[in-house]
Amino acid sequence: MSTLLNGLAASSGIAIAPAYLLVGPDLSVNQQYSANENHEVKRLHDSFALTLNEVQTIRKHAHKSLGKRAAAVVDDQLAILNDRSLHAEIIEKVKRKHFTAEWAIKETEDEQLKVLEKMNDNDYLSSRATALKDVSKRMLSHLMGVKLPNPTLLSHRAIFVAQNITPTDTAQFDRRFVAGLITDDGGRTSHFTIMSKTLSLPAVVGTESATDIIKNGDLLIVDGIHGKVIVNPSEEEVDHYQRLAAQFDREQQEWGVLKDEQTVSTDGRHFKVVANVGTPIDVFDARQTGAEGIGLVRSEFLYASGDQLPGEKEQAQAYKQFLTEMPGRRVVVRTLDIGGDKNLGMLKLPQENNRFLGFRAIRIGLAKPEILRPQLRALLRSSVYGRLAIMFPMIATVEEFWQARKILDEERRRLLDEGVQVADNIEVGMMLEIPSSALMADAFARKVDFFSIGSNDLIQYLFAADRGNPRVAYLYQELHPAILRLVKRVIDAAHAEGKWVSMCGEMASNPLATPLLMAMGLDEFSMNSSSILHIRSLINQLNTRQLQPLVHKALNAITASEVEQLVRQTVPEVIE
Amino acid sequence: MSTLLNGLAASSGIAIAPAYLLVGPDLSVNQQYSANENHEVKRLHDSFALTLNEVQTIRKHAHKSLGKRAAAVVDDQLAILNDRSLHAEIIEKVKRKHFTAEWAIKETEDEQLKVLEKMNDNDYLSSRATALKDVSKRMLSHLMGVKLPNPTLLSHRAIFVAQNITPTDTAQFDRRFVAGLITDDGGRTSHFTIMSKTLSLPAVVGTESATDIIKNGDLLIVDGIHGKVIVNPSEEEVDHYQRLAAQFDREQQEWGVLKDEQTVSTDGRHFKVVANVGTPIDVFDARQTGAEGIGLVRSEFLYASGDQLPGEKEQAQAYKQFLTEMPGRRVVVRTLDIGGDKNLGMLKLPQENNRFLGFRAIRIGLAKPEILRPQLRALLRSSVYGRLAIMFPMIATVEEFWQARKILDEERRRLLDEGVQVADNIEVGMMLEIPSSALMADAFARKVDFFSIGSNDLIQYLFAADRGNPRVAYLYQELHPAILRLVKRVIDAAHAEGKWVSMCGEMASNPLATPLLMAMGLDEFSMNSSSILHIRSLINQLNTRQLQPLVHKALNAITASEVEQLVRQTVPEVIE
Repeated sequence: MSTLLNGLAASSGIAIAPAYLLVGPDLSVNQQYSANENHEVKRLHDSFALTLNEVQTIRKHAHKSLGKRAAAVVDDQLAILNDRSLHAEIIEKVKRKHFTAEWAIKETEDEQLKVLEKMNDNDYLSSRATALKDVSKRMLSHLMGVKLPNPTLLSHRAIFVAQNITPTDTAQFDRRFVAGLITDDGGRTSHFTIMSKTLSLPAVVGTESATDIIKNGDLLIVDGIHGKVIVNPSEEEVDHYQRLAAQFDREQQEWGVLKDEQTVSTDGRHFKVVANVGTPIDVFDARQTGAEGIGLVRSEFLYASGDQLPGEKEQAQAYKQFLTEMPGRRVVVRTLDIGGDKNLGMLKLPQENNRFLGFRAIRIGLAKPEILRPQLRALLRSSVYGRLAIMFPMIATVEEFWQARKILDEERRRLLDEGVQVADNIEVGMMLEIPSSALMADAFARKVDFFSIGSNDLIQYLFAADRGNPRVAYLYQELHPAILRLVKRVIDAAHAEGKWVSMCGEMASNPLATPLLMAMGLDEFSMNSSSILHIRSLINQLNTRQLQPLVHKALNAITASEVEQLVRQTVPEVIE
Repeated sequence: MSTLLNGLAASSGIAIAPAYLLVGPDLSVNQQYSANENHEVKRLHDSFALTLNEVQTIRKHAHKSLGKRAAAVVDDQLAILNDRSLHAEIIEKVKRKHFTAEWAIKETEDEQLKVLEKMNDNDYLSSRATALKDVSKRMLSHLMGVKLPNPTLLSHRAIFVAQNITPTDTAQFDRRFVAGLITDDGGRTSHFTIMSKTLSLPAVVGTESATDIIKNGDLLIVDGIHGKVIVNPSEEEVDHYQRLAAQFDREQQEWGVLKDEQTVSTDGRHFKVVANVGTPIDVFDARQTGAEGIGLVRSEFLYASGDQLPGEKEQAQAYKQFLTEMPGRRVVVRTLDIGGDKNLGMLKLPQENNRFLGFRAIRIGLAKPEILRPQLRALLRSSVYGRLAIMFPMIATVEEFWQARKILDEERRRLLDEGVQVADNIEVGMMLEIPSSALMADAFARKVDFFSIGSNDLIQYLFAADRGNPRVAYLYQELHPAILRLVKRVIDAAHAEGKWVSMCGEMASNPLATPLLMAMGLDEFSMNSSSILHIRSLINQLNTRQLQPLVHKALNAITASEVEQLVRQTVPEVIE
């Protein structure tokens, strides 16, 4: 019988191949002393030399088989190996403290990691720490005379299974033989994710138990679209996934050519398909998939770690990064949206019975301006580096928007007084995710530069149903005429005042909703990068004028299933 | 310094007077035996006779000073005193078991109470048990030679303070001297509440500690409007409450004449002002205050006690009671509305993170037809006794209404097949309390006989704010243009199909909303009985045609405070 492992989809695609376990030998080190310090120093020098040679070989190999970008990921390791002060520090431990070579390396590694942890710079921290651990591991393997797994020796296609995969691991891959990647550890860390996406390798991370369950040679299916792994699949499962893989490849090819295209209906109406991003790393995906901008930066990532709020400068640096990575394209940043299902330990939010109807997002921002003001200042500071738009989440009344806007204007004036440059083309808008605001869209449209419809929350409030609650999830209906009527109302109200409308909920990437949304005049579709090319492809095949009767019928339908049927009948060729 | 006690408002009005404590002597009895059985039997006969005489005196007194209805409340006591088998049972205990007279009474009382508890008929249980305890108390006081408090001796106006007040207590009141009532015990039990309302005596129950804190002669303020008691108030407090009392009296007088009037605007438009009721006892209030029907029966009271669901017959009996108490007037019963903030131990509902967006009301009814079907059958059975309307709560989609309606039709057919009579004029409608349904009011209007707008929930979902959460309660805005727009949409959609619309949330009794709602054409205003005459008085002074410009401005306003200002400017004479 086959075994199913669930994880996180880190890089999409499907692979079917035998397992190759990248599980290293035991390299644990005890605190040991040696009387023969000269011998230990010599052993250290040998291991430096062997490791340097090894990493340089990996680099050359990577350069040849994977290209320049892949080769560069071992540069951090090389920098450590060339760091003379670090050598000196390790040798010092042998000479002064009479440590063994192994123990001197281990203690230095531990000390360095502690220093890095205090530096509070996530990106630098993680790449430097990963490199340090990798170098230490390689030096120890040489000292102990044990072999690390060497995927370069592989001569058939295989799916690599590891606790975690480091940049030097990926740099050693021969792309002819790596079919997919699976790790126990969670998190889509930067190098690994970029590498697997660059190589178009299906990858699933965070399986927790893959290295325990999977044996070398087991047949595996990696479903990097849905984050699943099937160990020793049945024939039916193999058949099924082969069909899925073929479809995926066909779509990739078909959609891939649209990467640098615009999004235009057959009757010449222009739309923008843009990306939702949660961290700076997501911008890589957005560019890869041809996003025409960023429709939603979830700024919560800045608050996710640490026990204090991020500083103004730190935030400004992060926003600058988004803007410079998307030159000439609009980047919409949403101010902090916590509460509801998202909590932050450091803020000590109150316990609430109905958190979705509680103290969250802009409600917190207005009640605690000590959180909102630094974020707005940081955004204003970053604004000179690109085309920034700011939006406030969970606006329920016009007064709330006025208040938030007033705080923004105050901080702008203050920064200008301090001599800080601030762009004067920043657009200021709001999430439209509360029914009251949709009903008042005409009044809001006079005050805002744009709306971004947050369909996930809007639908939940509209039907009074928490979609995370399995007993009432059936009421989460993206194609229901009630939501369509509300969306139409919002778009019409915005256009009447010459404002634009985006949608950044999941409905924006639902192909069944696409014909309706484009025909109603939605200007921007914002979604996870993986859906961008699909939706662009769909829009490019449709004609908004010909879709008008469909919209009319859908708005006058009574149920969601009636709307779904109408869409399937009208555009059968593009909706499977 | 004054002391504030909080309780439940059981009968409205304000009284200021000294305290009179109705706290009885210690009548506790131990298990004791007597060798002299003849003596004990004689003592028993004496106490029967004295108690009978006493209760008859109370009855005569009550008849003279309070009228026939008041006198009837001691009939249960008289029935017990005239119950020969009960006498025999008590005497038997003395003769066979050699109990003292006191212990024989006490044990019989305890046994009888246990039997009553098993009978599972709440109304009978509570009146019979109260009478039994009262008779037992009186007999014991005669046997022990101690005096019960005797309010008939009082010669000045006073506020009565007691642990609880029995029908015989109230029957002894001299209405010239009783200014108000306060009890420790909670619950607005039937006799006591009806009595204090009949006598227009301000009453606060459930203070828990009144008899501990209040001393005989303390100056008290009973605020039966808000459920408050102030002990030894300051001069300012006395002044303040004297003004409130004068205003209350003025309003009662002014509104009282409207009790049997219709509700008609000055331009001749008819409205209905009807009552929300939670238990059969509330119907008394509804009639007292001239309700033109019942706009909402909260059927939850039937499920509130016991550890099993109420049977079909038991329910039918209760619905019949509402209908026969309101002859010729419409009674709208809402099917079980649990979940959200209302839970039922017996149903073992799941824990939910967002209960207001969860498994509740009709969602439970449709998922568990074993609850909904018996309720609908009971309603159908009762329908021949009056003008019944049935409504389903929390309808979010047309499919849900169809399903509920289908179950109702199936049960009707089944009952007819069984030979049960069912009225054929039952109206079937729905609560309109979910934004999606308001947006789809046109589609619903073709299917239902009426809408009842549940403004409390509708506003919460509209603004995505739990009004029970103090941090976001500011977003609960009854006068916001968004809710007005939605209400207008619902009324227009219903009227286009010739259907009527009621509102049963608190907004229906908000005098600031009244001019807007009547001008938008709301047909029925359903509210707690205490507000009925006020709202009728208001409607009777206004002209719907003259209010049209106000409605137009309110619908185009931007904030709730703007609407409030508009209303106050337009109708200053009626809104204080």
